[in-house]
Formats: sequence, structure tokens, C-alpha cells
Amino acid sequence: MGRPIVRLKDIADQTGFSVNTVSLALRDSPRIPQETRATIRQAAEALNYLPNHIAKSLVSRETRTIGLVLTSITNPILTLVAQEIELRLAERGYSTLFATSNGDHHEEKKVIEMFRSRQVDGMLIYPRAHRDLDHIRRLRQAGQPLVLLVGDMDAGVDVVAMDTRRGSHKAMRHLLEQGHRQIGLIDGGGERGNFEKLDGYRQALDEAGIAVDEGLLVVPQTHSVAGGYAAMAELAARGGGMTAVLAATDLLALGALRWTQENGRRVPDDMAIVGFDNIEFAQYAATPISSVDYAVGQVTELAVERLLGLIQAEALPEPEMTLIEPDLVVRASSGAPISGP
Amino acid sequence: MGRPIVRLKDIADQTGFSVNTVSLALRDSPRIPQETRATIRQAAEALNYLPNHIAKSLVSRETRTIGLVLTSITNPILTLVAQEIELRLAERGYSTLFATSNGDHHEEKKVIEMFRSRQVDGMLIYPRAHRDLDHIRRLRQAGQPLVLLVGDMDAGVDVVAMDTRRGSHKAMRHLLEQGHRQIGLIDGGGERGNFEKLDGYRQALDEAGIAVDEGLLVVPQTHSVAGGYAAMAELAARGGGMTAVLAATDLLALGALRWTQENGRRVPDDMAIVGFDNIEFAQYAATPISSVDYAVGQVTELAVERLLGLIQAEALPEPEMTLIEPDLVVRASSGAPISGP
Repeated sequence: MGRPIVRLKDIADQTGFSVNTVSLALRDSPRIPQETRATIRQAAEALNYLPNHIAKSLVSRETRTIGLVLTSITNPILTLVAQEIELRLAERGYSTLFATSNGDHHEEKKVIEMFRSRQVDGMLIYPRAHRDLDHIRRLRQAGQPLVLLVGDMDAGVDVVAMDTRRGSHKAMRHLLEQGHRQIGLIDGGGERGNFEKLDGYRQALDEAGIAVDEGLLVVPQTHSVAGGYAAMAELAARGGGMTAVLAATDLLALGALRWTQENGRRVPDDMAIVGFDNIEFAQYAATPISSVDYAVGQVTELAVERLLGLIQAEALPEPEMTLIEPDLVVRASSGAPISGP
Repeated sequence: MGRPIVRLKDIADQTGFSVNTVSLALRDSPRIPQETRATIRQAAEALNYLPNHIAKSLVSRETRTIGLVLTSITNPILTLVAQEIELRLAERGYSTLFATSNGDHHEEKKVIEMFRSRQVDGMLIYPRAHRDLDHIRRLRQAGQPLVLLVGDMDAGVDVVAMDTRRGSHKAMRHLLEQGHRQIGLIDGGGERGNFEKLDGYRQALDEAGIAVDEGLLVVPQTHSVAGGYAAMAELAARGGGMTAVLAATDLLALGALRWTQENGRRVPDDMAIVGFDNIEFAQYAATPISSVDYAVGQVTELAVERLLGLIQAEALPEPEMTLIEPDLVVRASSGAPISGP
């Protein structure tokens, strides 16, 4: 039933111009001479050509559904982002499907394939490894609208994300200003090649003329509170004069706080603690925890706008990267300057 | 291409028996005389009849995908359950899609419809209102395999859930044994007609010969930590001699703990606190919080097994309800008996 879909190639064949020229002409690009644009538009009309987004909906490919890929469904900041995205998409008439990669590369590919087979109109993705994006880049090149929610370099894919490197740098500047010199880092990102927080940590120390002490770096076994608890125990067991610790998430910071207080050390007097994400629990901890804020509202609004823009575009524009500079929320866990020597 | 699908009705037309008799005969039911069964089986063979589950997969209706409907994606116990379900389904070759109703009836219907249009093989559902299940019951009657993850009465749908009424009763028995007589309840369930926790609370008081004091019941404005904080402030403002509080979730209990400690009262000496779900944060709170455990492993294993059983069944069996009795984990927040008058 119905007419066959006319593609750009049919117009190119008819007029003798290249597909690229046809595409540019139909978008009224000034790079194509006025006369050529007129010729191509007439041919398109004669062939009953429909712009891609209309043709797509005509053949019922539009499902008004967006797929959101999370690395974990139990990370409070990711689920808060997920909830905000769902509400914002619902306001615009889109439904959201969630799936999780559980931080596994194979699972990530499988989940993305599943979304494709369920014909989502677009995807929002937290990739497990911020620099292992070939499979996602290929999808983009094949015309799949998608936006990444992390990334700090030109990924060849649209990105809307918090600038975690600057967040880490800001937290370190704060601790350095309080007089701390030996600052630990509980950072789980390195195992997956996500070096943004470590980069910010190193840069701030470098600017302060302090050499990085590898003995102050620890990778927790899990990203849970329990992981932060064990990581803090390990840092303490190594000895040395550490007076502050930066944890890559508030969950890890909560665990570090717990270990510190159970072992009779005062926070922040004996040990200052700063976390990431500013989850609700950080505020309600035994000692309220300072944290690098995750601007959930801003990230989700911009990411949803970007994705819907891609879905409605006749041809995908060049990928853009938007990094949002995070604020540091200072609370009691790092509020007081340490006493001098 | 291919042969038309032979349905039970075709066999009924051919043999003169009813569709129901044909269905029972093909499942070798002893309710159908041996001879009739033989006649029907011969007709089915002659017509090249395929049992439903094989026919289904032949026409590519099987997607090996399960839809999970959550009321909220930011509730830590729901997301833990979601993660476990996803892992268990993955082990069995199924992918999981999540969607959330945000506790809204209209959204719940929409999300379920979306899953149907994406042709999931089955659904696992946390319904927002435990007794407002008509739309779900109709789906079940239409042959959709699905399992509810809450419910305390015959829902007409399969149920695998924690027995929250007994959990509430157990927590109250514990507080009563510690000598508490005026026990508050922070319970958000009533607004949606989910009365299980309130029922357990009332029953335990009744058994102890204590009249329910409506002044000790409060419904928080949100189910977050902040909601528990405000609810505790409200209970305290009402005055009276309350010495303990049962909160419907650990998030609410964490908020109640925070308010109590900020207002200079000792936990558990001045105020004992018990929560529900036994989330990781309960253990790591300023004072570790006693909690009614959510048996995540048991619920998810049984629910997944039940659902896959329904998917593989040739005809859906009668719905069954499985309620799991929860354990109470006693920690410092309710560990010590209150001092006598």
C-alpha cells in the first residue's frame, strides 16, 4: 500500500548532481548556487520527495519513545537524573524506557541493540567507559539520534555533561585553601579509563606545587558505602599524615566518614571529607558532607533539548559538546580549617 | 508466506467440541474423557496445530524482553530490586526494560500500554495502588503474563511480594517488648489505599490492649528523607509522650533520626526509631537504624521464576499469591530498653 519512499539518491539520479549536493540544496545551503537549488527543488517536488523526518513518521517508524542507558540503576544520582529526564520527556509527549549496562561493555552493546530493535526515536547514554565509544560513534554515523551524558573530549557524538574534571579541581582548591597538603583520593574511575576526577586532582596539586603521592590514591572494590568504608581503612593502614580525602561519589564519602568516626577521629578536625554528586544523603549524614554538586536540572534539560533537536533534524548536524561547570557545596565535613602544625 | 496459524477455534469447529474442551484436551486434562482427548489430538495433528508458545515464537512475537514497572526510580529498595531482576533475567537470556509510573495512575496505564506496544513477553509490576488493579487484571485475563510485586489479597493476578503487614506487626511487637506504649507511625501508604503497614501497626497495638491514638499517625508530604524530617517535627509539635516511631521506609526513618538528633534528643533513649526496607544507608546512619528487611534475593528469584513459568505455559494457570515473611534487623536506633517511669 502507498507509494515507495523517494530518497535523496533518486533525486540525484534524476538531476545528475551528487547526493551531497542534493542534500545541501534541499536544506537551502548557500554553498550551492541558487540555480542548482531551484533545479533540485523542482525535481524533488516532481518526485513527491518528503523530508526525512516526515517520511519517517509516515512509515510509522516514529514511536515517541526514548531509550536511556544507565551504567547502574542503584546509583542515587543516576536515578535522579533518570527521573528528571523521564518527566521532561513526558511533558513533550515522549515515553522513556530505561535499561542498565551494569558497567559492562558487552551489556552496554546489548542494551543499545535492544533499544534499536524496539525502534526508539533516540537514546540518552551514560557510557561505562568515557573513551571507548566506537560502537556508539558508529550508530551516530548511521544516523541514530543520541546524546552522551558524560565525556570530556570530542567524542564524535553529542555530549551534555557535568565537567567533572573542573569539579574535582574545585574541590581540591577548597581543601588546599583550608591548609591541607596530604589529600587522599578514593577514585573508582581509572579501572574503566575515566580519568576526569584524577586529572582534576593532579592538576590542582600541580598548581599548588605539591607532588602526587601514589600512596594517597586508592581504588575501592565497589562504588557503594561499604566500598568507601574499606577504602578509607586501606588509606589509614598505609600510615602517613593524610588530613583530607576526596571521594569520587557521595556514597564512597559516606563510607569514608563512617570509618573515620568509628575509629575515633573527628571530622573535619582530624580528617576533612569531600564527595561528589550532592545526593540527599550527603546532607543528612552524621556529619553533613561537602560535595561537588550535580546540576541535575540543567543537565537533563539541555540533554533532552539536544536529543529532540537531533530527532527533528532533517539531517544530523555536527556533534556538539556541552560541559557544565559544577558548584561546590561546603558543609561541616570540610568546613573548618585544620589547626596549624 | 507460510501456513496460516491454526487456532483452538479451528479444532473446535472441526470436531464439534467447545474451545474450552479442546484446550483442556490438548493439555491432557483428566476432566475430558480419554476418547474425546484422542479425537481432539488427532484433529489437532491433522490441522498441523502448534501449541501456543511455539506458534507465538514462529510468528516472531517473542522478543525475550521483560518490562518492569516501578512506582519510582529514586527509591533505593525499588532500584535494588530492579537491578537483581535484571541480572536474574539476563542469566536466563532475557533483557529488561524499566519504566516508572511516578506513583500516578494515568502514567501507570500509559507505561503498561507502551510495554505492550513494544511487545514485551511479560511484565513485572509495582502497582501504585495495591487495590486498584482493574486495568492489570484485564490484561491478565487477556492472556498477558505478568506478576505483581506487592499485594496482600487475592488480586486475580499472580503476586510475589514481601508481607509488609506482618513486617509492620513484627516491628511493633519489638517496640512493645522494649516497653514503648506511645508509638508514632509515619506512613505514606494510606493516600493510595495501601493499608498493609497501618494494618500491622493497628493489629499489634490491639493485641497489646492499647487503643490507637490518631494523634500519633502522620502522613509525610514526600517519601524522601526531607519528608521524614518534617513528619517527625509535626509529631513532636503535637506534644504527648511518644517514645518511639515506626517509619514506613528507611528514608523516612533517616529524616526522623536527623530531626530527633538536631533537637537534642537521644536515640534510642528518648526516641526509638524503626524503618522499613533495610537499605544500605540505614546501617551507615549517624545511629544505625533498625529496619524490617526486604528479602530482595528471595522476592526477585521467585518473581522471575513465576513470570517465566507463565510465559512458557501453554495456557495461563490460576493466579497464585506468594507473600514472604520479613525479618526485623535490630540496630542501635531501637536496641536499648527505655528507662522505666
